[in-house]
Amino acid sequence: MMKHKAAHTLRSPLNTNIFEDVVALPAAILKRSAVDNNIEWMQRFADQSSVCLAPHGKTTMAPALFKRQLKAGAWGITVATAYQAQIAAQAGARRIIIANQLLGQANMALVAELLAQGLDIYCCVDSVTNAETLATFFLQQQLELACLVEIGISDGRCGVRDQKQARQLAESIHALEGIQLAGVEFYEGVAKDKASVESWVQQAGGFCLQLHADGLLQHHTALLTGAGSVWYDVVAESFARLALPDFITPVIRPGCYITHDHQLYHQAQQQIKQRSALAIQLNGDLIPALELVAFIQSIPEKGKAVLGLGKRDVAFDAGLPQVIALYRHGKKRNVDLQHCETTKVMDQHAFWHYSSAVQPQVGDMVVLGSSHPCLTFDKWRCIWLVDDDYHLLETIETFF
Amino acid sequence: MMKHKAAHTLRSPLNTNIFEDVVALPAAILKRSAVDNNIEWMQRFADQSSVCLAPHGKTTMAPALFKRQLKAGAWGITVATAYQAQIAAQAGARRIIIANQLLGQANMALVAELLAQGLDIYCCVDSVTNAETLATFFLQQQLELACLVEIGISDGRCGVRDQKQARQLAESIHALEGIQLAGVEFYEGVAKDKASVESWVQQAGGFCLQLHADGLLQHHTALLTGAGSVWYDVVAESFARLALPDFITPVIRPGCYITHDHQLYHQAQQQIKQRSALAIQLNGDLIPALELVAFIQSIPEKGKAVLGLGKRDVAFDAGLPQVIALYRHGKKRNVDLQHCETTKVMDQHAFWHYSSAVQPQVGDMVVLGSSHPCLTFDKWRCIWLVDDDYHLLETIETFF
Repeated sequence: MMKHKAAHTLRSPLNTNIFEDVVALPAAILKRSAVDNNIEWMQRFADQSSVCLAPHGKTTMAPALFKRQLKAGAWGITVATAYQAQIAAQAGARRIIIANQLLGQANMALVAELLAQGLDIYCCVDSVTNAETLATFFLQQQLELACLVEIGISDGRCGVRDQKQARQLAESIHALEGIQLAGVEFYEGVAKDKASVESWVQQAGGFCLQLHADGLLQHHTALLTGAGSVWYDVVAESFARLALPDFITPVIRPGCYITHDHQLYHQAQQQIKQRSALAIQLNGDLIPALELVAFIQSIPEKGKAVLGLGKRDVAFDAGLPQVIALYRHGKKRNVDLQHCETTKVMDQHAFWHYSSAVQPQVGDMVVLGSSHPCLTFDKWRCIWLVDDDYHLLETIETFF
Repeated sequence: MMKHKAAHTLRSPLNTNIFEDVVALPAAILKRSAVDNNIEWMQRFADQSSVCLAPHGKTTMAPALFKRQLKAGAWGITVATAYQAQIAAQAGARRIIIANQLLGQANMALVAELLAQGLDIYCCVDSVTNAETLATFFLQQQLELACLVEIGISDGRCGVRDQKQARQLAESIHALEGIQLAGVEFYEGVAKDKASVESWVQQAGGFCLQLHADGLLQHHTALLTGAGSVWYDVVAESFARLALPDFITPVIRPGCYITHDHQLYHQAQQQIKQRSALAIQLNGDLIPALELVAFIQSIPEKGKAVLGLGKRDVAFDAGLPQVIALYRHGKKRNVDLQHCETTKVMDQHAFWHYSSAVQPQVGDMVVLGSSHPCLTFDKWRCIWLVDDDYHLLETIETFF
């Protein structure tokens, strides 16, 4: 049985390019050079910031990409669930941060398997209830799970909201058998501005240092960890100002940087380039790596085309996918796409309003850039890796 | 390697229920009795309306469910792409409507395989360009593809916009070798009200009858087909008024009815129950079959809980998933959830604001109803089939 929608090619795709009409469209593609560039760029950023990098793997859930990130020097892989931790481990990660609460016996059992294999697994805790449940489970398994106290902010996501709660939780974790107090975690992605992020890191870092000073950190490597793809520069700089002792490893966890995008994270990175001296100094920059290719399937009205891709194929929650190139009979057309716009996506279709100079035809292929890679990746079981000329190289499998 | 997030159970799940904490959560579940009820209800609706039913398979992409629909009497399966047609064929469908334009050599090759196996495959055409490309391809393969002229409306999706275009296209298809003129198709889901749908069906039906009268319909079974899950009653009634000759088979194609939902299609069905004499006469009604189960993973602030599921697990484009039941230690709690609301979903989390009487705890399980099943199905490679007591029966595999 055909396992997924990207499975079919007319003939061997190797050495052909995607515009030669040999691959079943729509298709998602990853530009190899951009992926490699982004992996290398962020690793250099982390290295030169003296922080460790544990890329968030939930973005791609692609072991082949985790391997590239680890090979380039990533300290470990971050994930959101126990299942994702299993996939990261199978890709070779030896250090895994579950940047989330761990609940349920079945999920805990998945983590126990990894601990029994000698992997270093961290998870986040923000309630004594959860700490006690974890302790009971892992003690029964004769294992010890490394727990990070999650520090949140008012109106934010998870995490304790004040220092008193944080201290109480840390002491509970410290006292329980089956779990170890291993540091402090936060997710600053919900913050509104740079000052909030700085004060958050200051608070979480100060708390972590106090736990260390009081001899409460138990795990062999304690962590102070935060940072998604929007504020990683501010977090890294704030970590530097804390002058952490060797015992505490600072870890940033951006995920979307690996493919970057054409809207949400493009804008975030432009902000970063404006405020971070290091990001400016580093050669190069992040490059969008993830694109979609689809047919123009109908031009029912002048100025309006229907594209053969939709919510089933591409993220639509942070801006709609936009056409960045048009191909006819395998050749790119030199047309100005500035005044063209995707205005609506349905499950399997998108409406594309084009300017009169474009003159598209039914059967033309369009390349689309998108926004928020996480929700495009989970629409595909296989994504094509391509070179700069869109020659098909291999397929990258995802595990959602 | 673990293939998907729903793969892990603590022990054999059979004869246990999902609230016994043996399955890795979050999980998507399908209530067997509701699925069976919905399949049976819609089949009775179609039978009593004297129309054929070709359920839209893109909703679930689950061969196990296609088989149930076919066994209950479905005439065929509708799909949106060539890949989906392959999956429908592998589930045993012998008649498949691709309710969409077919583009690209790789996609055409998939359809050619099915034609060569003797299956009856229809696709939609709304441009002479596309008709000519299809004809060239299928003639080369010494096959004939059944083509439906798609009739659209101004400001709608695909489909020719006036009678003159429609006639010209029909004559082109009729004249080309490699394709056959097999009827007329429309998708009325973009219509604004009942009167528009009725006039649309009247127009498409009149056109189809004219093609028949003029001896232009070539395929052994000609179709007049439309109807998604919102207007199927109006379309079926309009088909009846056309008094079609035996040569033209009327086919409706709702998809979402199989699981129904708690919002979008619940509201649509309430409208249908108000306007359709047949829907009122028929015993029973559609019942929501698709639910999500997740943990309360954090209660960081009074009145606000963070649930362990998000955009990675459930549709969010037509209303957010809402909690419909709360379980603690395997038992349902009798709490009033009326004034509780999911207010935000992130990739892996949802924010749930609860009323003070609910008193949830970290580790409680919640059951959620959702809106727009298509975009929940494509988040899961396996969905649990459960009985009315939430006992786990088997897994239903999806192919996206």
